[in-house]
Amino acid sequence: MTTVVPDEVAAELLAALPPRRVLTDPDTVRSYLHDEAEWAPYGQAIAVVRPESTDEVAAVVRVCARHRVPVVPRGAGTGLSGGANAVAGCVVLTTEKMNAILEINGPERLAVVQPGVVNDTLRAAVRQERLWYPPDPASAPWSTIGGNVATNAGGLCCVKYGVTRDYVLALEVVTAAGEVLRLGRRTAKGVAGYDLVGLMVGSEGTLGVITEVTVKLRPLRTTEPRTVVGFFDTLEATGEAVARVIAAGLQPAAFELIDRFSLKAVNAWKHAGLPEDSAALLLAQTDLPEPAAAQEADAILAEFTAAGATDAMQSTDPAEADALFEARRMVYPALEQLGQAMLTEDVCLPRQKLAEMIGRIVEIGERRGVQIATVAHAGDGNLHPLMLTPHGDEEAKRRAQGAFDDIVAAALEMGGTVTGEHGVGLLKMPGMTQELGPGVLALQRSVKQALDPHNILNPGKVVGLA
Amino acid sequence: MTTVVPDEVAAELLAALPPRRVLTDPDTVRSYLHDEAEWAPYGQAIAVVRPESTDEVAAVVRVCARHRVPVVPRGAGTGLSGGANAVAGCVVLTTEKMNAILEINGPERLAVVQPGVVNDTLRAAVRQERLWYPPDPASAPWSTIGGNVATNAGGLCCVKYGVTRDYVLALEVVTAAGEVLRLGRRTAKGVAGYDLVGLMVGSEGTLGVITEVTVKLRPLRTTEPRTVVGFFDTLEATGEAVARVIAAGLQPAAFELIDRFSLKAVNAWKHAGLPEDSAALLLAQTDLPEPAAAQEADAILAEFTAAGATDAMQSTDPAEADALFEARRMVYPALEQLGQAMLTEDVCLPRQKLAEMIGRIVEIGERRGVQIATVAHAGDGNLHPLMLTPHGDEEAKRRAQGAFDDIVAAALEMGGTVTGEHGVGLLKMPGMTQELGPGVLALQRSVKQALDPHNILNPGKVVGLA
Repeated sequence: MTTVVPDEVAAELLAALPPRRVLTDPDTVRSYLHDEAEWAPYGQAIAVVRPESTDEVAAVVRVCARHRVPVVPRGAGTGLSGGANAVAGCVVLTTEKMNAILEINGPERLAVVQPGVVNDTLRAAVRQERLWYPPDPASAPWSTIGGNVATNAGGLCCVKYGVTRDYVLALEVVTAAGEVLRLGRRTAKGVAGYDLVGLMVGSEGTLGVITEVTVKLRPLRTTEPRTVVGFFDTLEATGEAVARVIAAGLQPAAFELIDRFSLKAVNAWKHAGLPEDSAALLLAQTDLPEPAAAQEADAILAEFTAAGATDAMQSTDPAEADALFEARRMVYPALEQLGQAMLTEDVCLPRQKLAEMIGRIVEIGERRGVQIATVAHAGDGNLHPLMLTPHGDEEAKRRAQGAFDDIVAAALEMGGTVTGEHGVGLLKMPGMTQELGPGVLALQRSVKQALDPHNILNPGKVVGLA
Repeated sequence: MTTVVPDEVAAELLAALPPRRVLTDPDTVRSYLHDEAEWAPYGQAIAVVRPESTDEVAAVVRVCARHRVPVVPRGAGTGLSGGANAVAGCVVLTTEKMNAILEINGPERLAVVQPGVVNDTLRAAVRQERLWYPPDPASAPWSTIGGNVATNAGGLCCVKYGVTRDYVLALEVVTAAGEVLRLGRRTAKGVAGYDLVGLMVGSEGTLGVITEVTVKLRPLRTTEPRTVVGFFDTLEATGEAVARVIAAGLQPAAFELIDRFSLKAVNAWKHAGLPEDSAALLLAQTDLPEPAAAQEADAILAEFTAAGATDAMQSTDPAEADALFEARRMVYPALEQLGQAMLTEDVCLPRQKLAEMIGRIVEIGERRGVQIATVAHAGDGNLHPLMLTPHGDEEAKRRAQGAFDDIVAAALEMGGTVTGEHGVGLLKMPGMTQELGPGVLALQRSVKQALDPHNILNPGKVVGLA
């Protein structure tokens, strides 16, 4: 598989690494060229390398640095913005073989993992020690901690428990020069120097290659959560219900929106038997200790009703509640089953603007003639409108792209951000440029230039220095 | 007061700003030359400026940038590391006149403030709206939000609710070139570009001058907290109790240690009548909804007893509990009343190393012949040993400096950090240099050089580029 060596760089990589690390077979390489942002462009890679240690990562970066060849780091490739997409002539560095959990420390409430550990694997492992790693992107069964850190992944729990950034204590990184550095600390607090850990989180491999992650853990929750479900005739009323719950000072531990189109897709795929007769449903969960949970659930239910829910109830059956949240997690793969091309939005709005933004999305879909399925981490104001078009229909694709741009513009107009949790990658670069403005973009780029002066780390991503 | 103009820079500042912004009277200037780190060196300033708007801050920075004159930003001057100390020939920029609360937004759970707003003032204001700004450094009655952000201040609540960094959503900053930029967002989540807000937090004015802060708020806590007090015969047993509580998965909302010497100082100053017959006491607070709070308080009490507490009890009297926490906050000013010079430590240890570290501090104090009072945010592993020496006793001062260095070395040896929440300033620069190592320090400095190429923003602080 690795006998064809296209050029000097691949040869040097082969010489610098143990056997079976460098993949150059075209079919194999092809499967590593892009993430799940199907509309983002990608180039051809020289090779894919699968290092098995930090030293091997450093060796790869040093070879690439010497030749000024781009290095594109990659976790599981579940990203939705093109952040892991190959650029022409690059080496794709996949961390999939660096998948060891190195330490789970109960008394210090932390774990140390290699970047290729899958999110759900870590969560299951720490659960054995009665600990909890909260960040739970919908991709948790497949995505890796390294990828989660690189994109500052969110998820269902963030509405109460924060995003990946809030759980990263320390990182080992390989710099653009191929040097191995340890950033951060194992202590609960620390202010020794600038927060370079925070700078690396969400930098999509453009400032360093992550080779080890120390995450903060919480004690495992022991309460059985209560779930409140609300059904709404309009998406706008759904958004209104969310705004009311937040304004009332309630703190659900998950607060999700699923629209009818998404529900139908899950039903079609998984025969889930979910009700399809409302425009959308809201799922809120409270994890307070009883009887506070019952009180919070009642209060959420009251706000749903006040916002015009056609029906709202507390789920008394944990299996039913689990099925609803499982349905939420299944929306993306279920929509994929429809066999259409999918363009994923990720705008995040001030929570009081949610209803208005949803109204705009409906209007944009109608005006552009695009089918838009909407799911949302509603409590965070983070919307994922998903634009669906038949494969190969270029005209439909142009319409969808127009809708995507309109949604970005509307979000910015209302004081939102172009990306709540998926990252900039390639798809959100124009929107980000608009959001930040030239002054801030220049500051961003000066940081990139300081840490990667020859621009070899995932060039063209995030701040767009190609 | 401002008629004596020492040189061209002061003249330009006077010309660029409205009246009464530029102070050059030597007595006045003297009162702005240093923070509360009495042992940190400071230089003479050209002038003190008190801008009243962002534009005025930008005008100051532009004058200074043109002349390559250092700008030293300053909040209330309550810092304990020398971060706000004047450097020779600098302009001190105090934000004390920029003290407006610009917005309190309940539905969005955020507030927008100018940097000179005092921490307690903000907390009181948002309380009116049933909201809560958690970061509560002991300096909260005096210190400003701008200073809190610049040092990433901690406090009593951080053990459960996080530090200042966890509450900063957006910043307006004036760059080294005098440009006004807005960083961050008003949304719950956002990943558009590198986290420059996080980079600014804790950068002690070396990367930009903060002119506006948008903070995240929480709903006001409505439960009456329960307090557990434990008395211990040795500091080591006190540390052991802390480690046990954390390892048991308990989550106190405050978890403080006060040693006998500190208690005595508070008693002497405030006639507080606190018990002085133990080596130390621990104060833990739980803010869960009942009956979970009662259960957590019982569990904490059981761990105190298991660790060898001579006495441990739940306080059933809120006034008594308040008095104990008030005593904790009063330790620093009470020790100041003793009329001795005070050198403040701020090491933060892995929580399981707390007992061992406290033992080392006792040993260091005895060996060096230095009186050390110890208070701690125990639940975070964050210790504040305070070294006291008679004013003017140079030999005692050398011994205290020796003890300070020994404590830093011991903390690093045990995997701790040299500063948990006070910041690097000047006092912790040698320790930080040791903690980070040359590779990370070089990375830190490259960030500083990128954002402040002429090194005019608080030069010599944090990363030590003078």
